[in-house]
Amino acid sequence: MKNKIPVAVLGATGAVGQRFIQLLENHPWFDVIAVTGSARTEGQKYGEVCRWLLPTDIPKSIFQLKVTPSFPESIQTPLVFSALPSEKAKIIEPLFAKAGAAVCTNAGAFRQDPHTPILLPEVNPEHTALIPAQRAKQGWDGFIVTNPNCTSTGMTIALKALKNSFGLRRVFATSMQAISGAGYPGVPSLDILGNVIPYIPGEEEKASWEPRKMLGIINDGKLELAEIGFSFHANRVPVVDGHTVVLTVELADPPGDIGLAARTLSEYQAPEISRQLPSTPQPVIRLRSEANRPQPRLDITEGMTTVVGRVRADDLFDLRMVVVSHNTIRGAAGGSIYNAELLVKQGFI
Amino acid sequence: MKNKIPVAVLGATGAVGQRFIQLLENHPWFDVIAVTGSARTEGQKYGEVCRWLLPTDIPKSIFQLKVTPSFPESIQTPLVFSALPSEKAKIIEPLFAKAGAAVCTNAGAFRQDPHTPILLPEVNPEHTALIPAQRAKQGWDGFIVTNPNCTSTGMTIALKALKNSFGLRRVFATSMQAISGAGYPGVPSLDILGNVIPYIPGEEEKASWEPRKMLGIINDGKLELAEIGFSFHANRVPVVDGHTVVLTVELADPPGDIGLAARTLSEYQAPEISRQLPSTPQPVIRLRSEANRPQPRLDITEGMTTVVGRVRADDLFDLRMVVVSHNTIRGAAGGSIYNAELLVKQGFI
Amino acid sequence: MKNKIPVAVLGATGAVGQRFIQLLENHPWFDVIAVTGSARTEGQKYGEVCRWLLPTDIPKSIFQLKVTPSFPESIQTPLVFSALPSEKAKIIEPLFAKAGAAVCTNAGAFRQDPHTPILLPEVNPEHTALIPAQRAKQGWDGFIVTNPNCTSTGMTIALKALKNSFGLRRVFATSMQAISGAGYPGVPSLDILGNVIPYIPGEEEKASWEPRKMLGIINDGKLELAEIGFSFHANRVPVVDGHTVVLTVELADPPGDIGLAARTLSEYQAPEISRQLPSTPQPVIRLRSEANRPQPRLDITEGMTTVVGRVRADDLFDLRMVVVSHNTIRGAAGGSIYNAELLVKQGFI
Amino acid sequence: MKNKIPVAVLGATGAVGQRFIQLLENHPWFDVIAVTGSARTEGQKYGEVCRWLLPTDIPKSIFQLKVTPSFPESIQTPLVFSALPSEKAKIIEPLFAKAGAAVCTNAGAFRQDPHTPILLPEVNPEHTALIPAQRAKQGWDGFIVTNPNCTSTGMTIALKALKNSFGLRRVFATSMQAISGAGYPGVPSLDILGNVIPYIPGEEEKASWEPRKMLGIINDGKLELAEIGFSFHANRVPVVDGHTVVLTVELADPPGDIGLAARTLSEYQAPEISRQLPSTPQPVIRLRSEANRPQPRLDITEGMTTVVGRVRADDLFDLRMVVVSHNTIRGAAGGSIYNAELLVKQGFI
Repeated sequence: MKNKIPVAVLGATGAVGQRFIQLLENHPWFDVIAVTGSARTEGQKYGEVCRWLLPTDIPKSIFQLKVTPSFPESIQTPLVFSALPSEKAKIIEPLFAKAGAAVCTNAGAFRQDPHTPILLPEVNPEHTALIPAQRAKQGWDGFIVTNPNCTSTGMTIALKALKNSFGLRRVFATSMQAISGAGYPGVPSLDILGNVIPYIPGEEEKASWEPRKMLGIINDGKLELAEIGFSFHANRVPVVDGHTVVLTVELADPPGDIGLAARTLSEYQAPEISRQLPSTPQPVIRLRSEANRPQPRLDITEGMTTVVGRVRADDLFDLRMVVVSHNTIRGAAGGSIYNAELLVKQGFI
Repeated sequence: MKNKIPVAVLGATGAVGQRFIQLLENHPWFDVIAVTGSARTEGQKYGEVCRWLLPTDIPKSIFQLKVTPSFPESIQTPLVFSALPSEKAKIIEPLFAKAGAAVCTNAGAFRQDPHTPILLPEVNPEHTALIPAQRAKQGWDGFIVTNPNCTSTGMTIALKALKNSFGLRRVFATSMQAISGAGYPGVPSLDILGNVIPYIPGEEEKASWEPRKMLGIINDGKLELAEIGFSFHANRVPVVDGHTVVLTVELADPPGDIGLAARTLSEYQAPEISRQLPSTPQPVIRLRSEANRPQPRLDITEGMTTVVGRVRADDLFDLRMVVVSHNTIRGAAGGSIYNAELLVKQGFI
Repeated sequence: MKNKIPVAVLGATGAVGQRFIQLLENHPWFDVIAVTGSARTEGQKYGEVCRWLLPTDIPKSIFQLKVTPSFPESIQTPLVFSALPSEKAKIIEPLFAKAGAAVCTNAGAFRQDPHTPILLPEVNPEHTALIPAQRAKQGWDGFIVTNPNCTSTGMTIALKALKNSFGLRRVFATSMQAISGAGYPGVPSLDILGNVIPYIPGEEEKASWEPRKMLGIINDGKLELAEIGFSFHANRVPVVDGHTVVLTVELADPPGDIGLAARTLSEYQAPEISRQLPSTPQPVIRLRSEANRPQPRLDITEGMTTVVGRVRADDLFDLRMVVVSHNTIRGAAGGSIYNAELLVKQGFI
Repeated sequence: MKNKIPVAVLGATGAVGQRFIQLLENHPWFDVIAVTGSARTEGQKYGEVCRWLLPTDIPKSIFQLKVTPSFPESIQTPLVFSALPSEKAKIIEPLFAKAGAAVCTNAGAFRQDPHTPILLPEVNPEHTALIPAQRAKQGWDGFIVTNPNCTSTGMTIALKALKNSFGLRRVFATSMQAISGAGYPGVPSLDILGNVIPYIPGEEEKASWEPRKMLGIINDGKLELAEIGFSFHANRVPVVDGHTVVLTVELADPPGDIGLAARTLSEYQAPEISRQLPSTPQPVIRLRSEANRPQPRLDITEGMTTVVGRVRADDLFDLRMVVVSHNTIRGAAGGSIYNAELLVKQGFI
């Protein structure tokens, strides 16, 4: 790509915003030319107002950028990445879509909208077919595409591989989620140090519904939810990065040999159109064969790859497994960027 | 009790052994007069060879006790508590039973033996009816009674309450277990700090089978396992004390109102004979109504009480809940002591 | 004491306020009859608005108390304990003192005032002699007495013992402080999990100056700071409760034998008037002889006791040691209560 | 370098050995052709017997290598890296040196030997001048060069920069050391989770003496220790990687302006000969200006760079600062590799 596409990051000073900045440094297609923040930070240098949380330093070119307000008047890029909190996203993202921008958002505000895809390029690139209807209904020149909740992400990728080969009926899932999933300042250390919190507000509802939308099919222009039963329990654990989900799955056509399910997972390929993009994970799913893997501290180093292990037969349903996924890379900023790459490839941007 | 019963603690220098020593200090019925240890520690003062791990100090009377070998020749007490590792328990505990002692053990060596009860006084005090057959078969004057694995304990108590009222069909369970469950030195810090290990050797098998034995009934002198389906997944998490188990339960006769199940749990009473013993938990089950409880760091302070929360309807089965139990008190040494109290009450000691 | 003294706790819903409530339950002399909180909580039941953080439950009698505003008009108790944040304490505590109350505060607002004692009953009970001058200068019927910063507390108690016997010249100190010292929500878990933060705002200044005030003497009605040189560096570490301070001390008259210094510490007695109060620590200083103690997780169980270990000769100065102290009990609420007990004994209340 | 130098890693399956394997993958000068291990692992594939602890995978070429015994008969490489434990290093390393190999070791066995340099290329590359005397005295064709203890490393680099400009008199140091410094299984999680251990056996002696040797000068073929007074206290904290050392320094010629000392640190250059080697840190010292840095979890990402912050005036001595260094990269395997590169450059290999 000769000329990079200029992009803006909305809500760039927060925890997810920082991941966008970090991952977009040296991106082959996209060039961050604007960052937005709250009224408090407006007009100041990004590097001076941002409480940077990542081990790598702020990219130098971004350090000097002046923070602008989150309004389309002050930013005119064909593509914006949104790391806004949901309640702000609800108001601000439509303004950008109306003004003609492609909005790739990590916020959950529009995930339940029937014309807004929840997109994982490894899973449902064909769901961008909802975009024309979204534009028509809203009267927008641009559009909004969301990525799923960080907890839904890895789980849905693994379930997609199984669904393709064996069909899916019911899923019991228990998560052990990293503190970075709650943003910054997020979880008080007094709550989580040496502890487990067996509840995350809103998480169980999202993680039970979003996979059904992503695994659904578009029929006659309408998205039909997949008929899969979900029971999801969410826990917070003292882990910095990496969500772990323990899954028990009832399949429609279970393989006689559990080894076949394991191979299906490890050999899973993204749909053709999503395979050669800059953020495509290689492999999509890494299968660990050690008895005590995947572990979040060891298995998130590949960033975009979903890591699966302990694939084995279940006594009540058909199959059990453990999925680890990097919640702020694959499950947040990296996922949005991968979505944008797909949209470029599909000609939406 | 005017004259306390003299007791010995086998394997008294290990992590569970230390809990026995701590909990038996000032016990109204039992008086520790002997402690056993490995050849390395034999003949030395307990306080000088024991690498004490608990925040409270070693009781003064025990500090001075000479460590003796784990053989009945050197110890003649009517009751011994065993904190031996399983492979040693297999050989040593029968020697004590043969010599006439009541052996209340935390080891798993004999849990699968059809004549050895796995005993929780709140759940199955009637299972001590297996003891005469055990004696007869083995030709022992004494006998062995075990308590369950620390992970089985809290879960089985909560399930018993539900079973009594609604019957039990199937259970999905995922545990998040404390590091103290692995003893000392146990889990290397490099493995668990800021991490989750999604596997504990042998744990899933035990936690899937032991509840069925404890919830079974004795028919014609034989113990029949309860017909309950189990799927259990075990994780280790960076928590010092307190095992958390997330449960989804299919009931035989589910109540129309989930609040009834919650009340059933909170009002559960131990069988009459187990209610007024020195270690009887008050209450047996503490029901937490806060959305984010129980938490291991906050909810293990009552030691012997099982703490339950997040009782709610499930989308696939009938009921979901979270159980927290102190793994080295209720789930280990405290459980064995409570068992011994029951055996005294029943006249076996 | 036949009739307990009615007391109020200002700022009762915060982390330190909760410790006051917990420690005052069943106090032999004091009876909590009022709790104050922010405008948001006013008029509501304490138990319903307080986000309780401690493992023990809220005392039942306090659960039902209505939260009142922090103004003397709504509260008329002869003694108030203050857990207010410093900026509020600055305004509100004088109102209570003016209205006639004895204010025992954990806040730092008045620690630098020359007529306000920073009080540790084990160290400087005679500093309450400043109270009459305080009253006179301010025209108050009541008065304010503070306890030191949580980090200064344990260190000053240990230094006092050494000063009495050997004199003090210079002190190098490095702290490793628990997260509970920052209140709630306090330290974000993303900042501290698996990490060390080598800085705590304001802490080094306080911990370098407060000991000099407490170890000073009153001369002609004026408090003279002790002539001791301090270099203090503060770190935050991932520990729930218990501040650890590593000290290197230059003495005026060092003992030839370091064992003598150790004995001096372990045998230290509070001044006569402070010895038999309800909160008097027994012992004042617990000396640990193990090479790897004191440790915060193991050595804070005695609450009010200061724990010292690794007492040894230093290559540059005279003596090195490690001090552990419970920061929210001895270093905060428990310290204020002990102060109030001393003031009752001295007839100020 | 056209043909890479074949090297062996002794003790390759342990925690430090694994870091050697990781860091030597794709090294431009060195090629690992042999790995040694205990009798238990001899003859088996490295990848199958090594309990790999690092997040990146075992390099494929190394996975297949057969583990050989740690004897020079079975290995004939001109250079060996040693990750042996000290007691084995004492016996085995001389065998290799005698057989003609250059031994770059992380073990401490020979650090106190007057003819064996403790080498940091940024600090004392000229100390390799001791090698001929070592060879002569021992009658070896090869030689042994050590790197310092992981705690001495970062501290000595920062002190060297100050010494060059201002001279050094006395140093008070307190460390907060990561668990990976103790190897694997190393520190039991029950000891360190949510805790501080104020003692590490042998560490204070090493960290007080090694800097004096490295900062010493060779006079007439003999190494003279630098005349610097040290008082060092070592703590273990729950951090995975990265040792933090808090330092207070008395200088011989303190600068009037502390800012000058900060610049001296940030602009410090390694001696000419050490500047362009493959492992040369860029920069040698990274100066952090934020009030709350350096932090181990954030500031070890540059691996070989020493990170310094909180440089400020001290009330008793001249200067205070905090140093963070990656203990298993700069302080262990990476340091040995950098040493070997220097030795190649100097013609010793």
